[in-house]
Amino acid sequence: MIEPRILRILKDIVGKENVSADRADLICYSYDATQQQFLPDVVVHPGSAHEISLILKMANSEKIPVFPRGAGSGFTGGSLPISGGIVLVTRRMEQILRIDEDNLVAVVEPGVVTEVLQQAVEKVGLFYPPDPASLKFSTLGGNVAECAGGPRCVKYGVTKDYILGLEVVTPQGDIIKTGGETMKGVVGYDLTKLMVGSEGTLGIITKIIIKLLPLPEAKKTMLVLFDSIDGAAKGVSAIIRGKIIPTTLEFMDATTIDCVRKATNLDLPAAAKALLIIEVDGDADLIERQAARIQEIVAPLGVVATRIAATAAESDEIWKVRRSVSASLRKVNPDKFNEDICVPRSKVPEMIRTIEGIAARHQVPIVNFGHAGDGNIHVNVMIDRAVSGEMEKAEMAIEEIFGATLKLGGTMSGEHGVGITKAPYIPMELDPAAVAYMKTIKAALDPNNILNPGKIFLADQN
Amino acid sequence: MIEPRILRILKDIVGKENVSADRADLICYSYDATQQQFLPDVVVHPGSAHEISLILKMANSEKIPVFPRGAGSGFTGGSLPISGGIVLVTRRMEQILRIDEDNLVAVVEPGVVTEVLQQAVEKVGLFYPPDPASLKFSTLGGNVAECAGGPRCVKYGVTKDYILGLEVVTPQGDIIKTGGETMKGVVGYDLTKLMVGSEGTLGIITKIIIKLLPLPEAKKTMLVLFDSIDGAAKGVSAIIRGKIIPTTLEFMDATTIDCVRKATNLDLPAAAKALLIIEVDGDADLIERQAARIQEIVAPLGVVATRIAATAAESDEIWKVRRSVSASLRKVNPDKFNEDICVPRSKVPEMIRTIEGIAARHQVPIVNFGHAGDGNIHVNVMIDRAVSGEMEKAEMAIEEIFGATLKLGGTMSGEHGVGITKAPYIPMELDPAAVAYMKTIKAALDPNNILNPGKIFLADQN
Repeated sequence: MIEPRILRILKDIVGKENVSADRADLICYSYDATQQQFLPDVVVHPGSAHEISLILKMANSEKIPVFPRGAGSGFTGGSLPISGGIVLVTRRMEQILRIDEDNLVAVVEPGVVTEVLQQAVEKVGLFYPPDPASLKFSTLGGNVAECAGGPRCVKYGVTKDYILGLEVVTPQGDIIKTGGETMKGVVGYDLTKLMVGSEGTLGIITKIIIKLLPLPEAKKTMLVLFDSIDGAAKGVSAIIRGKIIPTTLEFMDATTIDCVRKATNLDLPAAAKALLIIEVDGDADLIERQAARIQEIVAPLGVVATRIAATAAESDEIWKVRRSVSASLRKVNPDKFNEDICVPRSKVPEMIRTIEGIAARHQVPIVNFGHAGDGNIHVNVMIDRAVSGEMEKAEMAIEEIFGATLKLGGTMSGEHGVGITKAPYIPMELDPAAVAYMKTIKAALDPNNILNPGKIFLADQN
Repeated sequence: MIEPRILRILKDIVGKENVSADRADLICYSYDATQQQFLPDVVVHPGSAHEISLILKMANSEKIPVFPRGAGSGFTGGSLPISGGIVLVTRRMEQILRIDEDNLVAVVEPGVVTEVLQQAVEKVGLFYPPDPASLKFSTLGGNVAECAGGPRCVKYGVTKDYILGLEVVTPQGDIIKTGGETMKGVVGYDLTKLMVGSEGTLGIITKIIIKLLPLPEAKKTMLVLFDSIDGAAKGVSAIIRGKIIPTTLEFMDATTIDCVRKATNLDLPAAAKALLIIEVDGDADLIERQAARIQEIVAPLGVVATRIAATAAESDEIWKVRRSVSASLRKVNPDKFNEDICVPRSKVPEMIRTIEGIAARHQVPIVNFGHAGDGNIHVNVMIDRAVSGEMEKAEMAIEEIFGATLKLGGTMSGEHGVGITKAPYIPMELDPAAVAYMKTIKAALDPNNILNPGKIFLADQN
């Protein structure tokens, strides 16, 4: 329960219509895509960096934790108010402040939805590549805090690669500018990149300076069905070795294909045990040649069928296969643990085989799909929580999967972050000295441990 | 003077052949490209992260400053031992440990010379784009510490964009790993990017994991001579607006062209008041079309002459113009202050006009050339230190140039860093809260202020 005194201060800062401690409202801000739930004491909707600064200063003097939140679409609990306190929602700050066509730069507030920016810049022939699956509702502030990825990262890199500068409110309530609107800049430490992916623990993002690209002239989408996962994985390596870096190189394994086949009327022949969705973009003539070359490269690898989209509608039809995965999986089992391990690209086949072994040993269905082009595999452990023993099986499987990932030189998370769900596994990946170095940074910048406490490796600081 | 006791400890750590306190040796490590000189007390050449760790632990307990150094080719004094102490040279650690052709990754030690890596990866059809002018002698450790740039950054980005992970010895002597060999990874804070460009103040780099690209199939070099700087600057904007991002977009102003014309026998017609060296790379067919399109785009902007290289030799001939700049300038005036301001690309013409005004007002020759494609201008204030009053004129001009740069939304340094030469100007660019945030990080990680003290904004910490 929040003290009435604190509630009054918050209402003075952001206006009473932007503060709520009603249970119904609190419930709305108590969960994210992890399906875990923690009730905050109060939800505030500030409209400016100045208001956020005042909230953080008050929170420091009153020792109340603050949990920043965009759309709450995260997969690892980064925005969950695990120790009550204040949920600070940035959605009111949703202006695209500027699109600079001469310098290929956009300046936006954190509450802008990813797709809204993408559509706005595409209208003037520009391009913001990062495309997390949540792009229709996730906010850019959240994307920056988590360093969101997406299928196009193979060619274009992740959110971090497009953030030139930020305005940030520090844990103690100072408003700072990091980076700027130039393409280069090396004055002082790179606080911009430190902030990206720090999951809301080092500052609250209030303005984002984004680098844009010219919109590629054309794109070409191909669906290639393989008779084995090994063929598909070898295809990925062979395409890259062939000096083509496609925009996307998505894969789905046999179980994923089965789920989609059962749940939809999409035409996926039974002989297909794996598939790749390959898109190339750029010069219209060049991508035709690249598509032809890709067909040649994968031909000897057990191709069951190939579809090359000739129109935008046909491309959309191919992407439907990928987009229907999540809903299809849900039909097979009610609960899933969605991990996003990342291994060096060439290790994908070995990783998939290892996961298949783990699935068989624990007798739990595991479905793999994702961004094969950069080794980022979405590993979905499918269970029914209601069945006794299933949770335990899932947890054991996940720990083994993380262990195998790290053994292959990979990481537990390519794009979802650590939050609370992966925090227990941090010691498996990071050595104690590196964690100590990170904790020293957090403790120095947030001495009262006010901002998003208990996230990443910080559980023991609560 | 170093105590004999300390000298003995250092010799025990790295072997006596790798330690020197002889004056002749100390002088060799007392300067860099700034032409400033500070004598260290001792020079050590460690051969491993473990040895560096022991040196830093000793330095902390004995409170001796440590100044890491690669090739000493920096332009801002980042490696200068401004308070005596230990110069720690990483040149012995010069192994390319691995080139992974499947995953487009290289793992190297910090002492590897940039060009050595470039040639090694090009042999197997791969590509490391960052190309600082010093690439024939600068080390990758130094490139990472300073976040080096170069002409190709327009299209390919800076050093930071190619660093996937590091092994680093922390200021207190812990050996930590940051990042990894995967294309994505969001577990914990991004210490890799924090370290890149931190100018040796937050850790000593002992291993570097580098992202590579496929080597572009072909490249095409063009030299375009303009009758005005405005024409050249408009050409830059027009090319980018035309949706072509060339590999390089180098420019030289009239004074630079004059210097080169006087100092060399290169054919540069008197009507040329500015020039662009434009290179495109990639698919052989596509770049032919891009080169033709670029010619069309710049045609109405006062073109005096255009040369398009048909062979590698002709391309080299064009690059000779750019490469001869430094030597040519030296013939005009013995001393130069080489700044590397960066403004939003569209502001380049206004910036150049402003600099011309400052040069006229202070009656000091200022020569501008550099990376117009990303707004990164090398501003060279030419004087003769021996002439009384010249230094003061240069300093006043530089401060005004920085002021004008910041007013246009730029930064004092696109690629050279702050070191000691730009440190006095830091308050012009960074707000006090941002500086405080950075200093908090430095103080937390290096409580004894041992590692490269007095650099960046840290002068007042000494």
